[in-house]
Amino acid sequence: MTEMRRALVLRRRPDGEPGPSHFEMTEHALPVPAAGEVLTRTIWLSIDPYMRGRLSDRASYAKPVQIGEVMTGESIGEVIASAAPAFAPGDIVLGSRGWETHSLSPAQQLVKLERHGPPLSTYLGVLGMPGVTAYTGMTDVGRVKAGETVVISAASGPVGSVAGQLAKRAGARVIGVAGGAEKCLWVQETLGFDDCIDHRGMDLRGALQAACPQGIDVYFENVGGGVQAAVIPMLNVFARVIFCGMVAQYNVDRPPPGPNLGFMIAKRVLMQGILVSDRPERFAEWRKLAAPWVEDGTLRYRETVVDGLENAPDALAQVLRGGNFGKMLVRVGHDPG
Amino acid sequence: MTEMRRALVLRRRPDGEPGPSHFEMTEHALPVPAAGEVLTRTIWLSIDPYMRGRLSDRASYAKPVQIGEVMTGESIGEVIASAAPAFAPGDIVLGSRGWETHSLSPAQQLVKLERHGPPLSTYLGVLGMPGVTAYTGMTDVGRVKAGETVVISAASGPVGSVAGQLAKRAGARVIGVAGGAEKCLWVQETLGFDDCIDHRGMDLRGALQAACPQGIDVYFENVGGGVQAAVIPMLNVFARVIFCGMVAQYNVDRPPPGPNLGFMIAKRVLMQGILVSDRPERFAEWRKLAAPWVEDGTLRYRETVVDGLENAPDALAQVLRGGNFGKMLVRVGHDPG
Repeated sequence: MTEMRRALVLRRRPDGEPGPSHFEMTEHALPVPAAGEVLTRTIWLSIDPYMRGRLSDRASYAKPVQIGEVMTGESIGEVIASAAPAFAPGDIVLGSRGWETHSLSPAQQLVKLERHGPPLSTYLGVLGMPGVTAYTGMTDVGRVKAGETVVISAASGPVGSVAGQLAKRAGARVIGVAGGAEKCLWVQETLGFDDCIDHRGMDLRGALQAACPQGIDVYFENVGGGVQAAVIPMLNVFARVIFCGMVAQYNVDRPPPGPNLGFMIAKRVLMQGILVSDRPERFAEWRKLAAPWVEDGTLRYRETVVDGLENAPDALAQVLRGGNFGKMLVRVGHDPG
Repeated sequence: MTEMRRALVLRRRPDGEPGPSHFEMTEHALPVPAAGEVLTRTIWLSIDPYMRGRLSDRASYAKPVQIGEVMTGESIGEVIASAAPAFAPGDIVLGSRGWETHSLSPAQQLVKLERHGPPLSTYLGVLGMPGVTAYTGMTDVGRVKAGETVVISAASGPVGSVAGQLAKRAGARVIGVAGGAEKCLWVQETLGFDDCIDHRGMDLRGALQAACPQGIDVYFENVGGGVQAAVIPMLNVFARVIFCGMVAQYNVDRPPPGPNLGFMIAKRVLMQGILVSDRPERFAEWRKLAAPWVEDGTLRYRETVVDGLENAPDALAQVLRGGNFGKMLVRVGHDPG
C-alpha cells in the first residue's frame, strides 16, 4: 500500500462554532522535495484558539485560509525525505505547516528539535507558541514586581498556566480564573497559584474581590467577556493589561460593547495587545530558558491529546468552548521521542 | 482699605455641569507667612477640564475638594511677602494653589519664573501643565515616526495644539478634530495641521476616513465619546493611543459603554493613560525645550481670558462645554510682565 498525504481543507466558513462539516479530508500522493525542501510526516499538530480567525474572511492578524486550501497550523514532524543539506531523515522538526499527515516545507522555515530533551509535544505548548506568548506578554508588558497582584484568565490553558507561573517566579500574588472545579484545583495545587476562581460560579465579582484585596496590578487577558468586565473596575493605578486573547467572543459575529475607557486615565493603565509572531526571536530565547524548567519539573503543564487528524476540527471546537484541559494537541502519527 | 484675601470655596457638589451656585466667595484678612512660607497675590489662574474631577467625591486621580475648602488650581502670582530666603517681594512664581486672590505656600512648592521671557500666562498653558502633558504623552507613548498619521482630538485646546505641533515636528501627517469652523480654521492655518475635522459635522466617520487614507497610527485622546468611537476602527496595526482626557463625559454620572477590546489584539494596539503629575521632572525639561519656540513664534498657542476670580466657575463650565478657544485663564490680578 503506497503511503498517501491526507490533508484537511476548508470546505466552507463557519458562522458560529466550527466543526467537521466545515472541512474536507483530501488525499494525494506524497510530494517529492525539490532543492531546499524537506518532506516530513506529522507527529503532533497544535490546536489553538487563534485558529478561529483563520476561518473567517474578516481581516485579522490570522490571515484567512481560503476555501479549498489546507488549514494552517504549527506541527512537529519527522523528516522522511530531504533535499536540503541541513536536514536528514529521522530529524525532528518544528514548523508552521498545516492540518495534514505530511508536509513539504522550505528548510529555512523549520527548526530542528533535540530528540533527547523535553517531550516533543511540549515544543507546541509550554515551550512553543503559547509559552512564548506568555513569556513575551509578561516580560514586555506585565513587568510584574514582587508583591503585586496578578490575575490570569484561562489559567489552566497553555498560555495562562505559563504566564501565572512566571508571575509566581517574580514574587507576585497570582490569582487564576478558569472554568470548572477540576481546572481550578489543578491551577492551585499543581501550578501553585495563590487562588483560582471558577468563572462559572455564581458571583465572579465577589470572588475576585475576595481574592484580590489589594486590587489588581497585572491582568493577563485570554478570554474577554464577563471576566474582563469583572477585572477592569479592580485595576490599580499603573496597572498593566496584556491583551493576548478574547476567546469568549471568537465565535461571535457582532462582539458586544466593552468598558468605558475613562479608567485608562484615572488609573493611568497600560493596555497592550501582543502577538507572538511579532517577536520571532523570542522563540529560541524561551526554549533555552524554559527547557531546563520543564525537564526539572519546576514549570508545570498539562495536555489534552486527541488521536487522528480527522478529529482536528472537533478539537478546535472544543478549545473554543473551553473544553480542553491544558494544551490541545492532535496526535497525527507515532511519536518516536 | 485693608486688602483682603478672597477665595472661592466649594459649597455643594454639582450633579452635572458645575456653575457659580456650587461655589461661595469668602473673605479673610491676609495671612502672614511663617518661616519657609511665601505670600503671593494671584495674577493668572488656570482653568482645566480635569478640575471637574475635584468636584466629585468619586475617587479619581484628581483628589476631591471637600465642601467648605478652597477650590484647588495652578496659578501664577507675585510675591508680596516672604519668610523664605529663596523668594523676595516682586518675584513671579508658579505653583499649585487655589481659586483665591492671595496664596500662602511653602517655598519648596513654588517655581520662580523669568520676568523677561515668554508671557507669564504661557507658563500655565503652552509651557505649563497642558504643554507638558502633550510632550509627555507624545514622547512616552506616541513615539511618532515621520510619515505616520496622527489624530488629535480637542486639537485647538492647550494640550491638543501642542501635541499636534510636536507630531508635525516629527514629520507626521497630523489631523485635528475640533468643535466648529473657527477652531478648525485656526488649527489648519495657524498651527499648520494637515487637516482639521469639525466633530459637529454631519459625518465624522466619513470625514476622518477621507482625511486619513492610510489609517491612524497615533491617537491623542482628549475627548472620548463619538470621536473615540470613530477613531478606534481606523487604528493601524501597532497603533498607539494616548489617553489624556475624555472631557465629553466629565459631566456625565454614568458613562456609556466603550468599544469591544478585540481590536487590541488584532491590531496589537498600545493604549496608555497619562497624568502629568506622575512625571514632575518633565515640567522643567519642557520649559527649557519649548520656551525658545514660544519666543521665536514656532510653537503657537491661543488663550481665552476671563477677568475676575468670581468668574472662575463659569470659566470651568465653559471649558467642559468646549466653549473656550485655546487655554482658558482667569486674570485675577494685574500682570506686570
